[in-house]
Amino acid sequence: MTIRVAIPGAGGRMGKTLVQAVAAADDMTLAVATARPGSPDIGKDAGELAGVGRLGVPLKAAIGPEDEFDVLIDFTLPQACAQFVELCRHRGKRLVIGTTGLGDADKELIEQAAETIPVVLAPNMSVGVNLALKLLDLAARVLGDEVDVEIVEAHHRNKVDAPSGTALRMGEVVAAALGRDLARCAVYGRQGHTGPRDRNTIGFATLRAGDIVGEHTVMFAGEGERLEITHKASSRMTFARGALRAARWLMGQAPGLYDMQDVLGLKD
Amino acid sequence: MTIRVAIPGAGGRMGKTLVQAVAAADDMTLAVATARPGSPDIGKDAGELAGVGRLGVPLKAAIGPEDEFDVLIDFTLPQACAQFVELCRHRGKRLVIGTTGLGDADKELIEQAAETIPVVLAPNMSVGVNLALKLLDLAARVLGDEVDVEIVEAHHRNKVDAPSGTALRMGEVVAAALGRDLARCAVYGRQGHTGPRDRNTIGFATLRAGDIVGEHTVMFAGEGERLEITHKASSRMTFARGALRAARWLMGQAPGLYDMQDVLGLKD
Amino acid sequence: MTIRVAIPGAGGRMGKTLVQAVAAADDMTLAVATARPGSPDIGKDAGELAGVGRLGVPLKAAIGPEDEFDVLIDFTLPQACAQFVELCRHRGKRLVIGTTGLGDADKELIEQAAETIPVVLAPNMSVGVNLALKLLDLAARVLGDEVDVEIVEAHHRNKVDAPSGTALRMGEVVAAALGRDLARCAVYGRQGHTGPRDRNTIGFATLRAGDIVGEHTVMFAGEGERLEITHKASSRMTFARGALRAARWLMGQAPGLYDMQDVLGLKD
Amino acid sequence: MTIRVAIPGAGGRMGKTLVQAVAAADDMTLAVATARPGSPDIGKDAGELAGVGRLGVPLKAAIGPEDEFDVLIDFTLPQACAQFVELCRHRGKRLVIGTTGLGDADKELIEQAAETIPVVLAPNMSVGVNLALKLLDLAARVLGDEVDVEIVEAHHRNKVDAPSGTALRMGEVVAAALGRDLARCAVYGRQGHTGPRDRNTIGFATLRAGDIVGEHTVMFAGEGERLEITHKASSRMTFARGALRAARWLMGQAPGLYDMQDVLGLKD
Repeated sequence: MTIRVAIPGAGGRMGKTLVQAVAAADDMTLAVATARPGSPDIGKDAGELAGVGRLGVPLKAAIGPEDEFDVLIDFTLPQACAQFVELCRHRGKRLVIGTTGLGDADKELIEQAAETIPVVLAPNMSVGVNLALKLLDLAARVLGDEVDVEIVEAHHRNKVDAPSGTALRMGEVVAAALGRDLARCAVYGRQGHTGPRDRNTIGFATLRAGDIVGEHTVMFAGEGERLEITHKASSRMTFARGALRAARWLMGQAPGLYDMQDVLGLKD
Repeated sequence: MTIRVAIPGAGGRMGKTLVQAVAAADDMTLAVATARPGSPDIGKDAGELAGVGRLGVPLKAAIGPEDEFDVLIDFTLPQACAQFVELCRHRGKRLVIGTTGLGDADKELIEQAAETIPVVLAPNMSVGVNLALKLLDLAARVLGDEVDVEIVEAHHRNKVDAPSGTALRMGEVVAAALGRDLARCAVYGRQGHTGPRDRNTIGFATLRAGDIVGEHTVMFAGEGERLEITHKASSRMTFARGALRAARWLMGQAPGLYDMQDVLGLKD
Repeated sequence: MTIRVAIPGAGGRMGKTLVQAVAAADDMTLAVATARPGSPDIGKDAGELAGVGRLGVPLKAAIGPEDEFDVLIDFTLPQACAQFVELCRHRGKRLVIGTTGLGDADKELIEQAAETIPVVLAPNMSVGVNLALKLLDLAARVLGDEVDVEIVEAHHRNKVDAPSGTALRMGEVVAAALGRDLARCAVYGRQGHTGPRDRNTIGFATLRAGDIVGEHTVMFAGEGERLEITHKASSRMTFARGALRAARWLMGQAPGLYDMQDVLGLKD
Repeated sequence: MTIRVAIPGAGGRMGKTLVQAVAAADDMTLAVATARPGSPDIGKDAGELAGVGRLGVPLKAAIGPEDEFDVLIDFTLPQACAQFVELCRHRGKRLVIGTTGLGDADKELIEQAAETIPVVLAPNMSVGVNLALKLLDLAARVLGDEVDVEIVEAHHRNKVDAPSGTALRMGEVVAAALGRDLARCAVYGRQGHTGPRDRNTIGFATLRAGDIVGEHTVMFAGEGERLEITHKASSRMTFARGALRAARWLMGQAPGLYDMQDVLGLKD
């Protein structure tokens, strides 16, 4: 069976990456693609826009009743998300949401929809990042207070916040596994006479340089050995592939609200 | 309660490291230490030999009936192991064995002893390495055939075999998780026109340089992202600390033969 | 003064990257861009093709006498290179050649042209790689036979040769600095009982995985310390930027044949 | 010709490492070794103390007129240094000083002595670190303001200052090459809304964890590529070997005050 995918915002950067990923997947087909009303991309072929050759799917201004699909993947904008939730709920379709910055009203709407349709909601769809979080939890539980924990992340020069949301999430996972409160044990920089390290701290080191897409390393260092878990993103294709994995997984699921840990089978 | 530890071969390199580790542990005390009969170390203080100051424990030629201890930690030689197994079985004491190169007869003897005493047997006692094996299994199951797997290891210039036993064990764990046979999918070098990579292979890259104690990285690389799990050993203290962890864990165990995965609680 | 650049093959992957780089440079302007005769890209705007917005430069089938420019940057194909050499010689224009795979006849033609025009010819225009070669030469001369040298490179799964040309070039530079013959001292893989390392060897380790653009590390490891020089390419923009640097440098040069070491001022 | 070496403080940690290094060098011999008057090590064999077997050189309380040697290597304490400077000046012997924390009076004394004897004075004798400083200078000059510079260092949990002196020295070298003032462009941590990176800054990231001897990486990251220069110390043998290299080099030098850049031939 081929999974029929709907992609709104297919002329945007993430939309084009999703189209590329679907075009490369043996078990999926692009059923319908849209751009916002008034966009100059309307009428253009989704595949040609994405640089993968003609797919025979011209961008439309909206998904209509005549458009058949199995799952909708939304990586658009917070203000657009609600309409896709409503659409999927109304038509009983599966929904994958990777849009970030959603407000409480949106989340409530999504929870209501998840009572009747299966939904995956995840601010970071990367399979590797979500897997890394699970590995970190396990490593921290085994190594406990025998090691020092340091988190290093590097991103491109235009990133405006530090540390990255992913680095902080990694810190939260480790802190929780060790029974610590990240707000109280995080150290964000070291300068001058710092004294010996306090084992109960979790250190963050943040690099900003060049065009680095995103790299994270968590180091657990004890006496005589070190364990490091590293994730490196090289393109937004990692998010698209995670979204496709979520879409595939949703095909066999009952209604409900899921996250990537569910998709990857990492919940105990 | 303080755990009383017996250390044979306490004048050797690994023996001295074990003495250092026990001396540094709050919950342990060195009860008895030996060297082989005729050794010039007999009569010398175990702590002074290990460079941690006098412990009041002179090395003896053998453990006698008057020596009280809770657990014996053996990192000596294959030919010496049997006598420590017999001793512990006879006296009903716990036993941690880190000696490598044991023959079938030794292993059989150990299995028999484990019917009446608790024994941990592990060729690599490093907590980090054993944890890494568990993380690799989990990562391989989640990432499956969506990624390429490459294993890089580096050791000092005097290591005579390649890849390291630990690298090969890592490869076996990943291969098992992916349903592959390592003997058929391992690639040990690349030169000339190799053609595109076959996803089903597992690549090994081996560095030999300087005084590197031991570093292993397993890379899982897909489209758009990479996950890397790295272990770096900096001294044989990592093995001593693993042995102490095993000794501690043994205090509460019933008779049986255990490995480091048991000690670390990593078995499902 | 604004440097007027001519870019043949402006609809290809490297051509589009060059157009992006020129569009982003304050001191340069795209003067003329071409595609091969018959290409569907002819008539399309070079900027729109490259995704940087309209530049008002439609692709032509050939550079004509009416097209004014200061320097031509050629990253096309071996069979096309000769015509650009002839054109630049005839019109007395500067020339940057990054095309790889040129034959002896082409090279002879370029040498002749370089008698009357300034030409930069380099198979790898990356500033970082060319700088790294200089650093490697210097490091090898200082460290001499006190260290073991190992070269690790990683590329994407579709690369068909191993080790990479850049890794081999790095090996040649180190071997020359140490008075060794790379053909006799290179080791391309290690398996089984290898014995202790021979200091006079240079080891290569080759990884093929995922979508890695290109990473090279040369490790010099002695007793007590290691020095590593690493280059990581993240996109072909690195080659475009190197080409622009060469073009800028050529503006003040006399006729002659130059390479990137000249451009970067790394020749003694 | 065999170089006869004098080592004061031969029972201390660095002294023992120097004895090991001399014992392993084909072209050197240990001529005389001392410990401070009253030390329990006096009378013990320097080789046995260092764990390299009997050398036939018992530790003395002072170097006497009967002790013949070519060069003295001092890694003791600031308060002891002056006596060795006087001794070498008086007897016209070469001197290598790796002692740190010297005051102005000591330095003045050393400068005076250097008018009649050859002296190498360097707070960090590591060949790799001194070579790295030269490579950093060269790299910064070539890459200029086209890249972002970030410096990452990692040391063991007991180090009490941050960043390390070596990391700061690396920053000074890069800043000088780029015409910047490190005091004004250094960034020691990032947290919260930082905004886009200012190219003129130099970032420091400091890790403190486990038993890491000392690792430094300087990253130069531009668009499309990264160059990294990394130094990793694994033991204080790196300082001993640098001192021996300095001693060897001094054999052919005229009186004067030199540093490791002189020894390594890295001055223009």
